[in-house]
Amino acid sequence: MRLLTAGESHGPGVLAVIDGVPAGLAVSPAEIDADLRRRQLGYGRGARQKIERDAVRITGGVRQGRTTGAPIALQIENRDAVNWERVMSVEPVAEAPDAVTRLRPGHADLAGALKFGHEDVRDVIERASARETAARVAAGAVAKALLRVVGTDVLSETKSIGDVSSVPTFDRDAIEASEVRSSDAERSRAMVAAIAAAREAGDTLGGVVALRASGVVAGLGSFAEWDRRLDGRIAQALMSIQSAKGVQFADAFVASRERGSAVHDPIAVRDGAGRSFEVATELAASRAASRTVRTSCWRWRSSRSRR
Amino acid sequence: MRLLTAGESHGPGVLAVIDGVPAGLAVSPAEIDADLRRRQLGYGRGARQKIERDAVRITGGVRQGRTTGAPIALQIENRDAVNWERVMSVEPVAEAPDAVTRLRPGHADLAGALKFGHEDVRDVIERASARETAARVAAGAVAKALLRVVGTDVLSETKSIGDVSSVPTFDRDAIEASEVRSSDAERSRAMVAAIAAAREAGDTLGGVVALRASGVVAGLGSFAEWDRRLDGRIAQALMSIQSAKGVQFADAFVASRERGSAVHDPIAVRDGAGRSFEVATELAASRAASRTVRTSCWRWRSSRSRR
Amino acid sequence: MRLLTAGESHGPGVLAVIDGVPAGLAVSPAEIDADLRRRQLGYGRGARQKIERDAVRITGGVRQGRTTGAPIALQIENRDAVNWERVMSVEPVAEAPDAVTRLRPGHADLAGALKFGHEDVRDVIERASARETAARVAAGAVAKALLRVVGTDVLSETKSIGDVSSVPTFDRDAIEASEVRSSDAERSRAMVAAIAAAREAGDTLGGVVALRASGVVAGLGSFAEWDRRLDGRIAQALMSIQSAKGVQFADAFVASRERGSAVHDPIAVRDGAGRSFEVATELAASRAASRTVRTSCWRWRSSRSRR
Amino acid sequence: MRLLTAGESHGPGVLAVIDGVPAGLAVSPAEIDADLRRRQLGYGRGARQKIERDAVRITGGVRQGRTTGAPIALQIENRDAVNWERVMSVEPVAEAPDAVTRLRPGHADLAGALKFGHEDVRDVIERASARETAARVAAGAVAKALLRVVGTDVLSETKSIGDVSSVPTFDRDAIEASEVRSSDAERSRAMVAAIAAAREAGDTLGGVVALRASGVVAGLGSFAEWDRRLDGRIAQALMSIQSAKGVQFADAFVASRERGSAVHDPIAVRDGAGRSFEVATELAASRAASRTVRTSCWRWRSSRSRR
Repeated sequence: MRLLTAGESHGPGVLAVIDGVPAGLAVSPAEIDADLRRRQLGYGRGARQKIERDAVRITGGVRQGRTTGAPIALQIENRDAVNWERVMSVEPVAEAPDAVTRLRPGHADLAGALKFGHEDVRDVIERASARETAARVAAGAVAKALLRVVGTDVLSETKSIGDVSSVPTFDRDAIEASEVRSSDAERSRAMVAAIAAAREAGDTLGGVVALRASGVVAGLGSFAEWDRRLDGRIAQALMSIQSAKGVQFADAFVASRERGSAVHDPIAVRDGAGRSFEVATELAASRAASRTVRTSCWRWRSSRSRR
Repeated sequence: MRLLTAGESHGPGVLAVIDGVPAGLAVSPAEIDADLRRRQLGYGRGARQKIERDAVRITGGVRQGRTTGAPIALQIENRDAVNWERVMSVEPVAEAPDAVTRLRPGHADLAGALKFGHEDVRDVIERASARETAARVAAGAVAKALLRVVGTDVLSETKSIGDVSSVPTFDRDAIEASEVRSSDAERSRAMVAAIAAAREAGDTLGGVVALRASGVVAGLGSFAEWDRRLDGRIAQALMSIQSAKGVQFADAFVASRERGSAVHDPIAVRDGAGRSFEVATELAASRAASRTVRTSCWRWRSSRSRR
Repeated sequence: MRLLTAGESHGPGVLAVIDGVPAGLAVSPAEIDADLRRRQLGYGRGARQKIERDAVRITGGVRQGRTTGAPIALQIENRDAVNWERVMSVEPVAEAPDAVTRLRPGHADLAGALKFGHEDVRDVIERASARETAARVAAGAVAKALLRVVGTDVLSETKSIGDVSSVPTFDRDAIEASEVRSSDAERSRAMVAAIAAAREAGDTLGGVVALRASGVVAGLGSFAEWDRRLDGRIAQALMSIQSAKGVQFADAFVASRERGSAVHDPIAVRDGAGRSFEVATELAASRAASRTVRTSCWRWRSSRSRR
Repeated sequence: MRLLTAGESHGPGVLAVIDGVPAGLAVSPAEIDADLRRRQLGYGRGARQKIERDAVRITGGVRQGRTTGAPIALQIENRDAVNWERVMSVEPVAEAPDAVTRLRPGHADLAGALKFGHEDVRDVIERASARETAARVAAGAVAKALLRVVGTDVLSETKSIGDVSSVPTFDRDAIEASEVRSSDAERSRAMVAAIAAAREAGDTLGGVVALRASGVVAGLGSFAEWDRRLDGRIAQALMSIQSAKGVQFADAFVASRERGSAVHDPIAVRDGAGRSFEVATELAASRAASRTVRTSCWRWRSSRSRR
């Protein structure tokens, strides 16, 4: 699967082209719109989110409710593009718009201006913008439709905002009910208050999001080459999100301070047949267990005959 | 530039092929060997490191001391391969070697065995092994030779081992003098002691390494597409190292708890001409400064005429 | 540079996303439209070409007449999409449209139906269609704008249609004036007549197109790896056009019957300085010359000092 | 599957790394050597072929007769490398070897020297050499082992050398018995005589090779994007061979002069069940048949239920 996205923040819209989606997959605009709406919700999102109310238009690769094997084209119109026609004009306008020259720290403004020698930083900020993630969310909704077929579910939960943190439970209903996507209602309120306080002070807050993928097909990625490893590919995908500055599996940075016996996931036999197994990732319980496992270890007995 | 590596831990050797290195770059085996030696040093490395004493043999792409533009082939012999000839035989041996069936937690053993249906886990562990990083280190030495030409320097320093941490100073001599690559001599001794204690207990320790790239050419990566972003590509490369489980830029996970005004690198004008600038990354000083910068911000005035 | 295209023949339109175009390149819709119009002209094109009158809409990557470095999005509306709304509906319609079950020889219909198990071959033919080349022509117009900056010109001329052939002269005005893109006015008329006769008989004709790239920057492609060779990449690009079934450099298949001395391009020194040279591709003259060149050969004397 | 090759004509050897070969595939050095031997046979090959007698050494990815899923490393030693140690030395030698300055027409010498600014053309010719195909042949032998598992067979036969041509019959035994890989014994002798005469005159000959792939799995490649089309990818692979200058499917250049009804492969139902079919590629018989097929066409009735 390959993905290219295009479009600027204040241009006519953003779009995604996904090549390599197999034919016969059920995909509907409503399903994609639901994810676009989740992207726009959330306490503290700018007023613009209300203007946008994104809706996808599928202009390729889906017919009569199913993918055809052709590249899938997803388009999301920018609702306020009409107000930006002169500034964003494809063709030169008589009276050139004022150049943006203010560089924001923590953004790609400076790097982009240097890369291409732009005098008007708008040529960078229109693309190096969180708006681009709308196209990724739409593409992600198609990916999730594919994952659903193989039984994989991906869920995210806010772990902390500023100095307010909670322990993710991955209770989907509770998460969806929270303005800040935390399953802990009390902490949700504290997070909302922290955001309000930071905004009041003309400042911003960081945060940590936890992701859980369950029902993952064994054997994704590969140990063969560095660039096929699943953890590396996940790290790239997450770090490529504009505001992401760190990626860890489990509590890697905290775990780095502990001994190996305390942090490795145990490998356990699920039944006596010797061919079912599980990797426990629930940390509290598994860490205790893991010590035993590490000494006894698990023996691999596949009944599959050699091909 | 493309990189493929091959070779098993106990096979005849590991190798790397690098395509896309420009011609005319000075590359010498001695320079690569120096990095291979640095990989093998370090307190607590297995006894095997003494056996190995890796040395590269360049079998393609370099002639009379310079690259030719052809793919560069780097080969590192496994010194003890002779003891593994029967087990690692390319052709089937009469008396098949015993299968490895013990799965190590924290390794690719289980995932690899499931991916390919291996009954002998040796088919996984021989490749999903830290030995493969020798090929990467050799390739990295060539990459560093290229970076040197454009004035970029990359340096790493150990930030913590177990619960012993130190503040990186990136003092190259001090780092190279330390058995654990920390510039702090006292902390180095404490780290060595921590490793010795863990080993005594039949256990292992984690750690954190800090990397600094200086003199980086502005404009690497791109804001255009998700998979061209420099931070995403760095994250993938680092996470693909076998034991890496987390990557962060600066102290991202700690910084996520602070306000934006406290953590963004300021963008500062270096002189009055309005075209020289710097991004301060020295944290103590810059964070204070950054607040000012954030309010006044920096205005982009390129004297470059439109192309 | 990467290119993805999307969109079906009777859907809302086709589009192209081009990633990797440098910033600052002058690009205008009018320039792209001129190439789209050239695609639609030509004697014997279906009646549909009159309906279409393609026009590009640039929805990303170009602002105030210049590229910004962001991905370029090119959209071409299908003018008759309104007549196909039920058949091409993204969402399932109550009364499912009739399935197409007729497989055309010489098309991807069968292969596509087998690949994805389609029962309605429309799921293949809508994408495996010459309509898709409209997106490629638009993308090609951007590529030509880039080539123009480096002084490269690409021109094509019809060499034969059916059994009527002419010798390409690459006289641009004469080619553009011909309904069949041959610079020979008399042969153009004969080609038109051949097309009319075949059409009358309910049949089709093949043909050969010659391409000439002049002012090509030396050093494109590479001898380093098989997939970087320029001739291989050109061959893929040309063969990927739906009706293309053969690619040759110069008259390769005819030349294969001659001796090497008769067919190799000579390498000639253009002046006495020893550093200017030319590769003659004008065949009649050069072939005679090449024999001399082949025996005396040309000696490479670069005055460039070793880097 | 990814392939990189490395190594120079007179260096220590050439090698190939193949990533992405599934585990469990039977691969043996003897099988690869058989293909390397076939590459070296053939009337008119240089004397060097006798020196070489290539043999592969597998140094990664194969264990106990089967692939493991790790990258496969194939190494072929250059038998006469010892005579070239000074000229090909990786490290600079005291007395620099004479530079090659003679540029051969029809080779990459000029393009390569210009690309990298080489003064010694040996830096190009050592890699832009037919010797590199030894690595590709070895990699191809592994690919053929994989194809065999899915029932695909690839066979080539010489169609013409100079002005001597024969009609390919794809009789494998007859082809293998011929010094020039033509199944026609009499034409083989004429081809040998033509080569001898050209060599006598200090000249060379071109030729045409026909390839047949049978038992091809339906659905390789895709109609979705230009760079996934099977014909384009085959064209690139073939054109990337150093001396290849043309690629056609069937007799495309001749066929371009005929009407469509005469050249398209018919699509025929093989039995009454309506789900078995064939694409006839045997030209003499099929072309007659194709006219009928084209009018009646074939209707696609898959009994597969919609997924």
